[in-house]
Amino acid sequence: MKYGVLGTGAIGGYYGAKLAQSGQEVHFLLRSDYDYVKEHGLQVDSCDGSFHLDHPHVYNDTSDMPPCDVVLVGLKTTTNRRLKELLPPLLHEDTLVVLIQNGIGVEQDVQAMFPDVQLAAGLAFICSAKTEPGRVNHQCYGHINLGNYSCRDEAQLSRVVSDFNAAGVKAGLIVYDEARWKKAVWNMPFNGMTVALHTQTDLLLKHPATRQLIREQMLEVITTAQHLGVRNIDESFADLMLQMTDEMTPYSPSMRLDYDFHRVMEIDYLYSHPLKMAREAGHPMPKLEMLEAELRFLQSQYLV
Amino acid sequence: MKYGVLGTGAIGGYYGAKLAQSGQEVHFLLRSDYDYVKEHGLQVDSCDGSFHLDHPHVYNDTSDMPPCDVVLVGLKTTTNRRLKELLPPLLHEDTLVVLIQNGIGVEQDVQAMFPDVQLAAGLAFICSAKTEPGRVNHQCYGHINLGNYSCRDEAQLSRVVSDFNAAGVKAGLIVYDEARWKKAVWNMPFNGMTVALHTQTDLLLKHPATRQLIREQMLEVITTAQHLGVRNIDESFADLMLQMTDEMTPYSPSMRLDYDFHRVMEIDYLYSHPLKMAREAGHPMPKLEMLEAELRFLQSQYLV
Repeated sequence: MKYGVLGTGAIGGYYGAKLAQSGQEVHFLLRSDYDYVKEHGLQVDSCDGSFHLDHPHVYNDTSDMPPCDVVLVGLKTTTNRRLKELLPPLLHEDTLVVLIQNGIGVEQDVQAMFPDVQLAAGLAFICSAKTEPGRVNHQCYGHINLGNYSCRDEAQLSRVVSDFNAAGVKAGLIVYDEARWKKAVWNMPFNGMTVALHTQTDLLLKHPATRQLIREQMLEVITTAQHLGVRNIDESFADLMLQMTDEMTPYSPSMRLDYDFHRVMEIDYLYSHPLKMAREAGHPMPKLEMLEAELRFLQSQYLV
Repeated sequence: MKYGVLGTGAIGGYYGAKLAQSGQEVHFLLRSDYDYVKEHGLQVDSCDGSFHLDHPHVYNDTSDMPPCDVVLVGLKTTTNRRLKELLPPLLHEDTLVVLIQNGIGVEQDVQAMFPDVQLAAGLAFICSAKTEPGRVNHQCYGHINLGNYSCRDEAQLSRVVSDFNAAGVKAGLIVYDEARWKKAVWNMPFNGMTVALHTQTDLLLKHPATRQLIREQMLEVITTAQHLGVRNIDESFADLMLQMTDEMTPYSPSMRLDYDFHRVMEIDYLYSHPLKMAREAGHPMPKLEMLEAELRFLQSQYLV
């Protein structure tokens, strides 16, 4: 299969490079790093073994890219409007687009732009960062689960899972909405709270007041998900997430990094969309609504 | 009447000095400023006319103070446990203690310490600060309302009101719980939110997300107050408070100052007590609960 990667950063860069390293044909879209990677290749510093791609297929314009069987989207959701122009050159009739992105409602909006394109959600559990041009630093974890949103051919999705596993990336298939909402149980409290209180996951869990708050926010997500018909999610999942986070290295989620570097935060898909769904379902999430308001305010203080 | 003042700072210093200046006998307890004021007197820089008390009655130990008819308590509620030792020397059988303090539940706790003492709430609407030793800076407003909590003699309370008015301080009598809860409608959102988002009242109201959040927090207080039987309070009071704050100079509430100077914040009476009452009444205030948790966390980051 022919792979395309939109957004060759911490996420797209890592997964695309792993596939290329394992022998798959991968075409990378780059922007600021294009000249550097064209000349020097792409470096992945990884806890699972570092490697270098000497001559990856790189582009700085999607109109030069070939149609691909699978497109991995590793862009921030804050730039998703650009998919309207970026994606068409890479599409053929049966292209599968995997949105390796944060939040709730991403697939709905991309599907509205491209009604016939096959979509899947990519849920990445990974700590990685693009530290300098052409260099991805993969610190830990790395597995990815795919959830079918509108893929007509399950076999195609399974092949992507196989390709990932063959490339040394643990991958699996999961139920779409269950996966998105389970990820939101972690994402919604921790992304925003590390920004709102200028802190890290471990300190939030160490103080009893914020530990309880985080748990209450998790329960808000779980209750809403249950009312939206999501299966296999109950209160025990909150405790599992707390325990998992207790065992993690102190961590700054992506939103905290966006905040620190004064970039646009992914408030729309991490908060506004699921909060709207919750209100429409008659089960608002008041503490996460408050967090959204705080984030909007904080962002307005540095974004002009 | 003989007046005592516990806590000769921005609040106790201002109101006590106004009474003394008008000819009342006022006895002031001071701590760090004692030597300075003993020698140089007490200066009030005021928008309503500055003045100086050359030789006020000052003490650095309440056991040296005479029994008083009225004691104005201008201490922060964070030190209220000390009233157990501070107050007794100033009490006679009919002493009226006026707690000019923030929050909900203050009178209940002081009454538990002194079951027979007559108590009133003092609700001060004032912008003032103690800027240096022996110097109170009164910027604007200044009126004070007294609410009867356990005063057996209404005439005594009325005399205090008269004394204030005679001293050029606008004063009135109000219904105790109505006044405390109405003040909480402003205090609970603005004190905490200016700390949580490191900002001022005007910026909170300028951004639509935080303006809505502040209003929702006000409605949480109003709904709880209604369920606790408080009268004359409904949704329109939130809009009145928003409008009043729009017209105010940009303002840092006392909790923001405590935070900036790394002092203990009045979280107990401004948040924990009313939040507990709300939960017990079956009408929790989720957004203000979240704010309490944020404040506890922020305070833990600077208090050892």
